[in-house]
Amino acid sequence: MSKGEVTRQRIIELAAPLFNQRGFEGCSMQDILEATGLKKGGIYRHFSSKEGLAADAFRFSLSQAVKIRMPPPDPSRTAVERLREMIDHFVEKPSPIPGGCPILNTAIDADDGNPVLRELVWEGLKSWRSRISQIVREGISHKEIRRDVEPRALANTIIATLEGALMISRLESSKSALNDARASLQELIERVALPAN
Amino acid sequence: MSKGEVTRQRIIELAAPLFNQRGFEGCSMQDILEATGLKKGGIYRHFSSKEGLAADAFRFSLSQAVKIRMPPPDPSRTAVERLREMIDHFVEKPSPIPGGCPILNTAIDADDGNPVLRELVWEGLKSWRSRISQIVREGISHKEIRRDVEPRALANTIIATLEGALMISRLESSKSALNDARASLQELIERVALPAN
Repeated sequence: MSKGEVTRQRIIELAAPLFNQRGFEGCSMQDILEATGLKKGGIYRHFSSKEGLAADAFRFSLSQAVKIRMPPPDPSRTAVERLREMIDHFVEKPSPIPGGCPILNTAIDADDGNPVLRELVWEGLKSWRSRISQIVREGISHKEIRRDVEPRALANTIIATLEGALMISRLESSKSALNDARASLQELIERVALPAN
Repeated sequence: MSKGEVTRQRIIELAAPLFNQRGFEGCSMQDILEATGLKKGGIYRHFSSKEGLAADAFRFSLSQAVKIRMPPPDPSRTAVERLREMIDHFVEKPSPIPGGCPILNTAIDADDGNPVLRELVWEGLKSWRSRISQIVREGISHKEIRRDVEPRALANTIIATLEGALMISRLESSKSALNDARASLQELIERVALPAN
């Protein structure tokens, strides 16, 4: 990376937790200047606007969360094992960017607001849901999961339960809601799984 | 109500959707002045600070959401019927204050921020969870719900699934995630319910 690219990446990495904790409106350019120790010109050399920086900060936060939460595809594991593992990762491994899940934060922040961030978080959510749906479809075709399961519906329920539980857990400063969500989702998966041959 | 009380209430009702949609930082005093047509002094006559107004606006939004979502207690209905009805209300009746669920919005907005709002939303969430837990306990003591069900865990799962699904539905501009959540929760309740005598 060139020196400019290194600076650009450093700004993104320092801005990411600020946007993730405070939201787009709650994080001012002044906050970014203080965190980076740069002058305004030093930021605008690399980003056309606060919105552009927030978009890159979200992409970075999301990539970090996905990396830590989504186990790498492993063809030796069954679909049911992969779903269980994904749920365990979400419950056990907090997003590495302070402030909680970037998808949940940005969805709530942008659903009535910033259209650029709204589109980005929607893409992120769709991509997560597609990955889960794909695992479910593989499970159905390998006769590990019941044929009457709708992959998108199961993926929606898994994501909704985990994200809602994270909201409660962060507010309560306790993992109990996340652990309750895990128990309930593991039971749901138990119910849709077919007995192994 | 005195004329002052009417004005105060009008300010709260006009500010509530702004805070609910934009968050505490995203809603400026300027936005409030424009919505109410008042001067700054006219607002500060009734509220000591923007934080004080935001707190009252949240209380108002929450009361409206609870009123429309929580069916009134009805001793002629079983606990299982009341749980089902609560889920139906959440899925079918959007919060009357634009911007979605005030608990979800304020939880995400305040979990790393404003301590007054954080405390208020935590009280709101605890009270909702207590009401659900209480229905579950009544169901257990009336032998409608299995004795091994943990009321708090079931309440956490119901709230998490509904709130997470609302986040997805609002982002997707579609009710499908909420409908998937309902189907999955109705199945969960079916499983914990005991057959009627």
